[in-house]
Amino acid sequence: MDYTLVIDQGNTSSKVTVFENDKVVETLRFGVLSVEELCPIFEKYELRGVIYSSVAKLDVRLVESLRYMTEAPVLVMTHETSLPIKVVYKTPHTLGLDRVAAAVAAVSLYPQEAVLVVDAGTALTIDVVDGESQFVGGNISPGLAMRFKSLNEFTGALPLVEYSVSDATPIFGYDTTTAIRSGVINGIVAEITSSFEKASEAYNCKRIVLTGGDSEYLVSKMSDSKMMIDRHQDLVAKGLNRILRYNENN
Amino acid sequence: MDYTLVIDQGNTSSKVTVFENDKVVETLRFGVLSVEELCPIFEKYELRGVIYSSVAKLDVRLVESLRYMTEAPVLVMTHETSLPIKVVYKTPHTLGLDRVAAAVAAVSLYPQEAVLVVDAGTALTIDVVDGESQFVGGNISPGLAMRFKSLNEFTGALPLVEYSVSDATPIFGYDTTTAIRSGVINGIVAEITSSFEKASEAYNCKRIVLTGGDSEYLVSKMSDSKMMIDRHQDLVAKGLNRILRYNENN
Repeated sequence: MDYTLVIDQGNTSSKVTVFENDKVVETLRFGVLSVEELCPIFEKYELRGVIYSSVAKLDVRLVESLRYMTEAPVLVMTHETSLPIKVVYKTPHTLGLDRVAAAVAAVSLYPQEAVLVVDAGTALTIDVVDGESQFVGGNISPGLAMRFKSLNEFTGALPLVEYSVSDATPIFGYDTTTAIRSGVINGIVAEITSSFEKASEAYNCKRIVLTGGDSEYLVSKMSDSKMMIDRHQDLVAKGLNRILRYNENN
Repeated sequence: MDYTLVIDQGNTSSKVTVFENDKVVETLRFGVLSVEELCPIFEKYELRGVIYSSVAKLDVRLVESLRYMTEAPVLVMTHETSLPIKVVYKTPHTLGLDRVAAAVAAVSLYPQEAVLVVDAGTALTIDVVDGESQFVGGNISPGLAMRFKSLNEFTGALPLVEYSVSDATPIFGYDTTTAIRSGVINGIVAEITSSFEKASEAYNCKRIVLTGGDSEYLVSKMSDSKMMIDRHQDLVAKGLNRILRYNENN
């Protein structure tokens, strides 16, 4: 009876993760999530609890179906949900729940440490958690794929550039493809590096925790950096699971 | 008889500049340029030459109308046009003509100097000209407005953030607006700074030449930087004018 289910609805896909205590035992990803797809999960695992979180609009029908299909309590993450960290943000009710969850996971993985939490997803979010388990602020800019896509869609002449780990990203591009690829990638790396330097200065931050769909790609492009970079594929899910367990005990 | 007319068709607007020798005497900007709007120019100035350049598709009808309306020779800038600089680029036929023109202007303004040429327009282009008047390469990434627009259009929850010089851009945002604004602005500043450091190392570059619609805004956000930054509002037009004059004499 120690399984929990975490549903994280993001901008471009929904991620479903089954935990056994703190351990990820199964991960599924859906473009559009319907509750039928979760049936095998409900049959396979005797769940102790479910947490559902969405960065966009709450899918009320999905929540109703979840409650109908499982006897386990379903926690819907909102800005009023109790958290094991303190959020120092002027408008906490507008702070993305995925950013909150990633910060919670970072605090539980690296307690009493200031950490730069980078989520390289649809958007690139760069947040700071200080050494006192406080979310102190952060930034949002376009994610990798969004930068490539916008250059193509919002200009008259630029192609859509694809990217894979083996690609050349010279310091300065020598044709259209490398110019765009280096522009986007080197730009994002500079953005993360600069944020880390500022967080080091202001909060004595020594570590970057990187997650999100493009995190593996980015780590490969930052391999010669001297920064301490830990990649955690399931950071947001881990944070949501931690929030679920925290609310069980409170 | 020393007036020349420069028409630069960009991604979002067309810029028309009248020069008296090297001096800008009049500047007009149009969303969509039709030749009728140029009548006052043709009446007011006795033109020695016209140059037309487009970053996207060449407007053949506009060129025909230009040739009909003025007796001055009309030079249509292409990738075959003779240049007063050398372009060291693997695919020179795909290099944006505005990037070429800005590089030509930088070389004429700062001869024998390595310069980082930054055009903060629809796209952000960061190019390097070395101390031997050579365009050696560069990068392309989304411009300021494009970053704000894509965050709004390609996500489910983020607003369109406006920007003006007086805006706060803290190191890390404390609400959605400052998170997005600082994310975009600090990211672009980090991108330019990092490119400048790399160009300094590789080409002994000591100066940034900044142009484009967002250059004034960016300069205000880089005021505490130790980099030498020169803003030139009409860099591309100046480069095109220089190319026109170069081709008159060859």
